Amino acid sequence: MPATTAPSEKLSLDDKLVAARTASIALAQASTSQKNAGLEAIAQAVGTAADRILPANELDLANGRESGMSQGLQDRLRLDPDRLAGLAAATREVIALPDPVGTVLRGSTLPNGLQLTQVRVPFGVVGAIYEARPNVTIDIAALALKSGNAVVLRGGSAAENTNRVLVALIQEALASVGLPADAVQTIDEFGREGATQLMQARGFVDVLIPRGSAQLIDTVVRESKVPVIETGAGVVHVFLDRTADAEMAAEIAVNSKVQRPSVCNALETLLVDTDAAERLLPPVLKALTENGVTIHGDERTRELYPEALPTSDEDWALEHMSLDLNVKVVDDLDDALDHIRRYSTHHTESIVTNDMATANRFLAEVDSAVVMVNASTRFTDGGEFGFGAEVGISTQKLHARGPMGLPELTSTKWIVRGEGQVRG
Amino acid sequence: MPATTAPSEKLSLDDKLVAARTASIALAQASTSQKNAGLEAIAQAVGTAADRILPANELDLANGRESGMSQGLQDRLRLDPDRLAGLAAATREVIALPDPVGTVLRGSTLPNGLQLTQVRVPFGVVGAIYEARPNVTIDIAALALKSGNAVVLRGGSAAENTNRVLVALIQEALASVGLPADAVQTIDEFGREGATQLMQARGFVDVLIPRGSAQLIDTVVRESKVPVIETGAGVVHVFLDRTADAEMAAEIAVNSKVQRPSVCNALETLLVDTDAAERLLPPVLKALTENGVTIHGDERTRELYPEALPTSDEDWALEHMSLDLNVKVVDDLDDALDHIRRYSTHHTESIVTNDMATANRFLAEVDSAVVMVNASTRFTDGGEFGFGAEVGISTQKLHARGPMGLPELTSTKWIVRGEGQVRG
Repeated sequence: MPATTAPSEKLSLDDKLVAARTASIALAQASTSQKNAGLEAIAQAVGTAADRILPANELDLANGRESGMSQGLQDRLRLDPDRLAGLAAATREVIALPDPVGTVLRGSTLPNGLQLTQVRVPFGVVGAIYEARPNVTIDIAALALKSGNAVVLRGGSAAENTNRVLVALIQEALASVGLPADAVQTIDEFGREGATQLMQARGFVDVLIPRGSAQLIDTVVRESKVPVIETGAGVVHVFLDRTADAEMAAEIAVNSKVQRPSVCNALETLLVDTDAAERLLPPVLKALTENGVTIHGDERTRELYPEALPTSDEDWALEHMSLDLNVKVVDDLDDALDHIRRYSTHHTESIVTNDMATANRFLAEVDSAVVMVNASTRFTDGGEFGFGAEVGISTQKLHARGPMGLPELTSTKWIVRGEGQVRG
Repeated sequence: MPATTAPSEKLSLDDKLVAARTASIALAQASTSQKNAGLEAIAQAVGTAADRILPANELDLANGRESGMSQGLQDRLRLDPDRLAGLAAATREVIALPDPVGTVLRGSTLPNGLQLTQVRVPFGVVGAIYEARPNVTIDIAALALKSGNAVVLRGGSAAENTNRVLVALIQEALASVGLPADAVQTIDEFGREGATQLMQARGFVDVLIPRGSAQLIDTVVRESKVPVIETGAGVVHVFLDRTADAEMAAEIAVNSKVQRPSVCNALETLLVDTDAAERLLPPVLKALTENGVTIHGDERTRELYPEALPTSDEDWALEHMSLDLNVKVVDDLDDALDHIRRYSTHHTESIVTNDMATANRFLAEVDSAVVMVNASTRFTDGGEFGFGAEVGISTQKLHARGPMGLPELTSTKWIVRGEGQVRG
């Protein structure tokens, strides 16, 4: 079973980083049609090489079962023919996206005749640290390639065998269309030490993207010397203003919480204006409960809805990732804004209101990547925003904020064309 | 002399960071005319309070002389009535710049009717670490205020007394127009420990901008947990292609090196194609020498120009900040690109050529913030680019690359307006 053995050439992690850097130079110059040919070759390989991928994946799953991996993690790790077809289809969707490289963002002719243009260029080498989800391997590799970047993947030792085969298939696919195979590298075989080295590789890696649990992201943000784009953790709020429509409030609360509770744009805390609590809370909490939500309420909530469990101070800062929901009655808009300022992770906040002035203040004063009026928080998503594919959702303010598409995987360069101009 | 004593209220560094954060919330909502009124009040204070500023500056200078501060550093530290007038004028120039806050960058109406807009918003709190140059205190404060940001300044203990008075004047000016005085803070009194704490203040400071020596920038980049925008160090190259015009080559080399040798966009290494070395080097190096430049040449350069001093391997990576220039004869464009890849700090590179294909390859393959054809490297400058004021020149790829104007001091926010939409 050659697919599950180590590669014959043993490369050090430094070798791999240098190889990725070298490959990135050629890849940055590749045309859109070359990159699309590479993506099509990857889609074909993933769609037709089940005989190489699934045995490696089964080995990872067996190791996982042996080491007591949870059912949820096993499910995320598992590949099957349907999922492989899905991955091939997702790769083909990236082909359809516009290539951001070469886009002219700004330009002018200066008074001295110098012609100035700012164009999008690839970062160079993107690093990704994520958990044992092989779909992310294909996903990130496809997005990086389309944006002209080489990529170094650290995907979790628990998926090491699967990722090794997937990366080998990608490398073969790239070589088959004349693109540099080294543009996609996995460093899973170096374990935790490899992740640590990747975070120190300033100068070799231009940007590092962590994807996964809040804990993983936090570790990368704290330890990395390479610039990081922080994605993910969402302590997301919906505020029901005193003028909110009860039916709309229930629909938005239920959809925000229930449609997919384990993702970062799912609702964690519902805030309700005290003036409308009696009118809004009973129907809204009834709808939530009927949809399987467990309510944790502050004192005023429990007066109106005694079935609610009590809350502790820590609950407000918690990303449940489950059907548990915090509910709090607030004095007014200012009190809601204070609560959000204290506990939000600056991901997504939504207000349900019919009052224009209140809506405008909420939009202006809530300092989050996405702020909404009368809409479900589940819309914070690259696909929903029309980006076609999503690299992640940035919760930092530098470079990219909110859902990131392909343009967010690029940097820029200023080009100056002169005829011998010198500065006076 | 109350201006040079410690403030009566002793605030801890944490207090100051919290005060800056609180002030940033109000400042983010301030209108352009309010912010301009604040800037005008600052300009007036700086222009008319010489009696408060100069004694404090004299105290810093006296301390500097006592501790053996170099003449150059003393000159950078020194304020006088002319320089104060210059600072007031520079502050008024910021008033004239367009306010980036609120600019709509992208927007669309989604198929489900959701209205999506991406708008520029202030970062929140900007941190700045720089050396003992009081003009930077006014400069950064003005740029931060105009872009709606609070700012925490760490300006070097050697300018502590001057900065304390300048910041007090700024705070009074802000308060006089109803803006939060706490929006501008100095933490010089906390010494090195203060700088260290500032670099750890993730969550309190949104972005940190180091300005000064390569060593200072390197320390901040290495130690900061707050996202950094790396500015500055420039090992800048000019490549004379075999088709270069000799006269243009000499003018561009001289201007790039001599016009202001101590700044980051000044030339450090001149590369010459071997096919044209005999034709180009004698007149170009003669022009440089006549302008006071000391030539350090590789072996092939010294064959053609025996007066050149020898070079060592370290020279190629050095930012001289002086009239010393490295000169190297390269085999061809590829050899020049290799040299640049190895030694450039990715700031600015320029080619002198009459060959279009060579120019295009150079522009495409050199991975620097600014790449030029037939122009002096001294044009890499926010003022020259038409930005009106310059926060610094970013040599990193994340968020901002090249000269940074006011828009680079902002983040963005997505605003979603709905009518009750939920995700299906």
